[in-house]
Amino acid sequence: MVMGATAEEPPPDIEAASAMADLSYAATAPALAEAIADADALFAWRSVRELLPEVWPKAAHLRWIQSASDGVDWLLFPELIESDVVVTNARGIFDQAIAEYVVGLMLAFAKGLLGVIEGQRHREWRHRPTELLSGKRLLVAGVGPIGRAIGRAGRDLRMEVRGVGRRARSGDGIFESIAGTDGLAGAAAWADYVVDALPATPATRHLFDASVFGSMRPSARFINVGRGATVDEESLIEALRERRIGGAALDVFEREPLPSDSTFWELPNTIVSPHVSGDFEGWLEAVVRLFVDNLRRFVAGQPLVNVVDKREGYVVEPSP
Amino acid sequence: MVMGATAEEPPPDIEAASAMADLSYAATAPALAEAIADADALFAWRSVRELLPEVWPKAAHLRWIQSASDGVDWLLFPELIESDVVVTNARGIFDQAIAEYVVGLMLAFAKGLLGVIEGQRHREWRHRPTELLSGKRLLVAGVGPIGRAIGRAGRDLRMEVRGVGRRARSGDGIFESIAGTDGLAGAAAWADYVVDALPATPATRHLFDASVFGSMRPSARFINVGRGATVDEESLIEALRERRIGGAALDVFEREPLPSDSTFWELPNTIVSPHVSGDFEGWLEAVVRLFVDNLRRFVAGQPLVNVVDKREGYVVEPSP
Repeated sequence: MVMGATAEEPPPDIEAASAMADLSYAATAPALAEAIADADALFAWRSVRELLPEVWPKAAHLRWIQSASDGVDWLLFPELIESDVVVTNARGIFDQAIAEYVVGLMLAFAKGLLGVIEGQRHREWRHRPTELLSGKRLLVAGVGPIGRAIGRAGRDLRMEVRGVGRRARSGDGIFESIAGTDGLAGAAAWADYVVDALPATPATRHLFDASVFGSMRPSARFINVGRGATVDEESLIEALRERRIGGAALDVFEREPLPSDSTFWELPNTIVSPHVSGDFEGWLEAVVRLFVDNLRRFVAGQPLVNVVDKREGYVVEPSP
Repeated sequence: MVMGATAEEPPPDIEAASAMADLSYAATAPALAEAIADADALFAWRSVRELLPEVWPKAAHLRWIQSASDGVDWLLFPELIESDVVVTNARGIFDQAIAEYVVGLMLAFAKGLLGVIEGQRHREWRHRPTELLSGKRLLVAGVGPIGRAIGRAGRDLRMEVRGVGRRARSGDGIFESIAGTDGLAGAAAWADYVVDALPATPATRHLFDASVFGSMRPSARFINVGRGATVDEESLIEALRERRIGGAALDVFEREPLPSDSTFWELPNTIVSPHVSGDFEGWLEAVVRLFVDNLRRFVAGQPLVNVVDKREGYVVEPSP
C-alpha cells in the first residue's frame, strides 16, 4: 500500500488505514519507484501525478489506485487504461461545494456584484436594478452527481433546469429534459446560464466550441467548473471579447495555474478563479474517509465503490 | 386618486388603474398640494416621499395610501399615524429578490470571492480552500415574509436556520427556533451568518448594537438588507475595524446615498452595496399589479391587502 505523500506530511486521519495495511509513503520518483514494486494499492495523492507513468514498469503487483479527485484525466495514461488495475475516484465528495460555488457565481452575475465592488472602490453609490435568478433558465452539461447537485440548487432557486448528457433521454426530478452532447448547441441557445460540469475525456474535448458559444444568447453567461479541456479556449475568448455572450466565470483552464500573461485575466465580464470550486475546508479528510472505506472493501475482497470506467474516464452508472 | 409620479413618466402598466379611477399625477409640492385636495387615495411613488407632510393639511378626503416599497419608515409621520388614513405596503414583492441577494452575499464570503477578484486584478493564481455553507448556522432577524424567504433559502442550502422575532416562540418549518428581540445577542453568538431583515421602527432602532456585535463569533458575518436605522453604525464600524467579527455586507445605511466620505466604503472584509437587494428588474411592474389589485378592492369597498399597522410600522400578522 503506497500513499502518494510523505511520511512527514501524511494525509489527515490516515491512522484508520494503517490498522489495515502496511503503508509506505512516496512523493518523489525514486521513492515511488522503490515503494511501488511491492505495493498492491496506491492512494494517488498530491505529487504522484507526474511520477506514475515513469515508475509504471515496476508496479508489478498493483491492483488498485484510489484517486483523491473526482476527475481522473490527470491520472489516466495508456498503459494504466490497458491494464487490469482498478481506478476509483472521489465521486460524491465535491458535489455540494461545487453546486454552492456555481450558485455563488450565478448570483454574482445576477446581482451585479462586480459592479458593486467596483463602485465601492470608487466610493460611488451606483444604484441599478438587479436580476432575479428565479424563473431564469439553467443548462447543466454533465448529469452525474456534480451536475445533479448543481441542477438541484437551481431548482431550489426556482430556475428552469435542463441537462446535457452523453445521450438524450427523458427528464427526471431535477432536469426537465436531457439532451445528448450532439444537441449541446441547441440546448445552449435556450439558456440564461450554461454550466460546464463535464469531465475531461476524449469524447468531451473542446465540446464547447465556436458553434456552442455562437448559439448562446447575448445575455447568457458561461460557467466552467468541469475541466478546461472541454472548452475551445480561443473561441471562448473571442465570444467574450466581442461580447457575443454576457459573461463567463471560469474556475478551470487547459493550462493550470493560468499563466500570468493569459488573456483570460482581463476579459470583460469574466471572473477567473484558481480551480477552487470543489476544494472546501475538510475535503482532504472526506477523501481519506472514502479511501479508508474502500481499503476495508479491498482487504475483505469486496467490490470497491466509485470504480472508474477507464475508457470513458469517469464512473459510468448503469442505464436506468 | 393621485399618483406620486409625473404624467410624462407614469408608472408602468398603470392603464389598468385608469379604467377604475380618475388619476392625477403629481411629483412636485405645488402639484401635489393641488391634486391631493380632491383625492381619496395616493399611490406613493418615487418623489412624493418628502412632500407629503407639507401638503398633509390639504388632504381632507384622503382615505388610503399605497406604498411602492415594503418598508414604510420613510412614509410614516406623526399626523399620518394619528389619522384614519389606511397605509398598505408592497409586502411580498421583494421577498425572493432579497433572499437571492442574501444567498449571493453569503456565498461571496464563503467562497472568498473578494479574494478571487483581487487575485484576478493582479493576475495571480492564489489557490485557497473555500468554506461550505452547508452545515453552517444562519440567524435571520425578522421573521416576516422576507425573513422567511431568506430562511427557506438557507435551508435549501442545508444550513441550520434560526430566527429572531418580536417575541420568542416555537420554531416552524423554516426556523428551528425563534428568539425574541431581547434574546438577539444570545442568538447572534450561535450563528455563522447574522442577517438583519428588520423594518425600521421605534422598537428596532439600533437593535444591533455593541452588545450584539460583541457577542458574535470572530468568524461570523453580518448582512444587513433591512434598514440602516436598526444598526448602531459606530459599533459596527468598530467591530469591523478591529476585526472582532468576520465581515459584513451592507445594503442599507442610516444615511442614503452613503456619503463618499463614509468610513464604511473601506472597512476590511466589508461589501457595500447601494440599497439594491430588492430592486429586481420588473419590481415596478409587480408593485403596480399589487396597487391595481388593491384599487379594485378599494373601489368595491372590500378590505385591502397588506394593511400596515402604522404604530408598529409594518404589516402585523395575527398570532398563530
